[in-house]
Amino acid sequence: MRITYQELLETFEAILVRRGMAQARACAALFADTTRDGVATHGVNRFPVFVGQIDQGDIRVNARPVLVQAMGAFERWDGQFGPGNLNAVICMDRAIELARGSGVGVVALRDTNHWMRGGTYGLRAAAANCIGICWTNAVAAMPAWGGQDARLGNNPLILALPGDPPVLVDMAMSQFSYGKLQEYRLRGQRLPVAGGYDRDGALTDDPAAVEATRRVLPAGYWKGSALSMALDMIAAALSGGNSVADLSARFPRETGVSQVFIAFAMDRLDRGWEATVARIKADVRASAPAQAGSAARIPGERAALRRADNDRDGIEVDQRIWAFVRQL
Amino acid sequence: MRITYQELLETFEAILVRRGMAQARACAALFADTTRDGVATHGVNRFPVFVGQIDQGDIRVNARPVLVQAMGAFERWDGQFGPGNLNAVICMDRAIELARGSGVGVVALRDTNHWMRGGTYGLRAAAANCIGICWTNAVAAMPAWGGQDARLGNNPLILALPGDPPVLVDMAMSQFSYGKLQEYRLRGQRLPVAGGYDRDGALTDDPAAVEATRRVLPAGYWKGSALSMALDMIAAALSGGNSVADLSARFPRETGVSQVFIAFAMDRLDRGWEATVARIKADVRASAPAQAGSAARIPGERAALRRADNDRDGIEVDQRIWAFVRQL
Repeated sequence: MRITYQELLETFEAILVRRGMAQARACAALFADTTRDGVATHGVNRFPVFVGQIDQGDIRVNARPVLVQAMGAFERWDGQFGPGNLNAVICMDRAIELARGSGVGVVALRDTNHWMRGGTYGLRAAAANCIGICWTNAVAAMPAWGGQDARLGNNPLILALPGDPPVLVDMAMSQFSYGKLQEYRLRGQRLPVAGGYDRDGALTDDPAAVEATRRVLPAGYWKGSALSMALDMIAAALSGGNSVADLSARFPRETGVSQVFIAFAMDRLDRGWEATVARIKADVRASAPAQAGSAARIPGERAALRRADNDRDGIEVDQRIWAFVRQL
Repeated sequence: MRITYQELLETFEAILVRRGMAQARACAALFADTTRDGVATHGVNRFPVFVGQIDQGDIRVNARPVLVQAMGAFERWDGQFGPGNLNAVICMDRAIELARGSGVGVVALRDTNHWMRGGTYGLRAAAANCIGICWTNAVAAMPAWGGQDARLGNNPLILALPGDPPVLVDMAMSQFSYGKLQEYRLRGQRLPVAGGYDRDGALTDDPAAVEATRRVLPAGYWKGSALSMALDMIAAALSGGNSVADLSARFPRETGVSQVFIAFAMDRLDRGWEATVARIKADVRASAPAQAGSAARIPGERAALRRADNDRDGIEVDQRIWAFVRQL
């Protein structure tokens, strides 16, 4: 079914107001924006989990991040276990502010909560005419390369550049998220490429087989495994916060994660960069198609198209999920 | 065959001195160090290509990078088409210096040359008790996802953390480099996983088939493709230098590339981080093996072991390549 942005926003807001959230409007808008961009998994579909975490006390509804150390262009903040999306907005905004002064700004954030859609903060930087780079750690959900049991987080990495639409890479370190595996299974489809291991330890494109073993495959095998590990180390070390291993030991419900926000102020550059990026886009688009009907795309284009569709036709939500949300 | 570090160093140095390089010793040491770490592909095996680029005039043997814009913690430098490895050392060192002042330091470098082993600059940051992150763009060598012809660079991304040994992720954006494909082919082996497409457009683990089409696979399929594109955009935009598309159009011999160097000064942090990283390593090492004999490894350990071997037994070099180098 399709509903208006306004209905989505006001429904989320009322539910958060009932939980006593002072920033209910801003938080609701982040969930509504994500849903409008076609990322329902981190918007409307995730909203009940978020509310559940408030009700359990994992998310402190009115906590705000506090500065714990300033070094110049790099600051450490403590998220006080507040709402992850509001915390992330504040910290990316602070990185942008630092970048206006120093060219680059970095905020490392500890003791925060799941930020929902990581792309939100990359797009926020891009809207402020900044390059934005950010990542988070997360509870263990993926074996390290050579190992069998989950020791690595999905640790999504986001890179965004200003543009119309902005360039947006928002990549988890596993080849497929558990959400994607479920989607393929429910549609009765195989994965387009191997997504993990089956019971016999063989690579498989059967989503149910991977869900059963929980041995999801790192993107690029050993490469995604190493990158996930390094991103976790850097986020935990720079923020002074929890690592994936610490979350497994202390916060298995995934509260108290560590994040890094980096912004570069493009206004400060003495040489234009827009034409350079335009040439890259044109060159990629000029690719000979891999097969009839395929095309090389610029990351972020698809989300922008979905937003346009949803703006025009109303926002697509799952009927049962929406009914569930409305009675929260 | 095995030779001493000293012989390697002095041979490289003499050849560079004959080309009139004032910094011959420092440049030779970078090639010798890389070879000692077991990365011959970017050490001794690559040295003849480097000398050839000097002889062709693509590398200006005594050019040094110059500062073109200072914004505080972020600076733009121009590499003046000097030796890529010397330029990269200077720029990572400058990022480290900026980080000592501002917590974080960033140098974006344009008009430089191939930096040989990217890990060198990550390890350099780690040796200065910094987290080091850097990447480079490169000539087009890989199709974008959905495309058929090479439009993306391998654009290696390096992340390093201090430690003994340091953590080092040094990953090209393709699943296998052309050097690796060649190695497998010469040994008569299949690739451990699909590495690209054959003539019929099917994924294959036959290295020769991929070499023939030059359709190497991005690591993580669409993920590596998007990441390669974004890293190129950011490097070219921040440095004001050439993109992969610009290199294809203007510098197909791969001179004038763009790079980014980021350092975080760990000395500045008010809260210890070493124990956090140690817990991550211990947790990953505690993985149940994927199969008998396998183990989850910490990135950078293998290079450190190879260095120890080569220090003890002499440095392994290919006899024919060494004979060729000696007459340069």
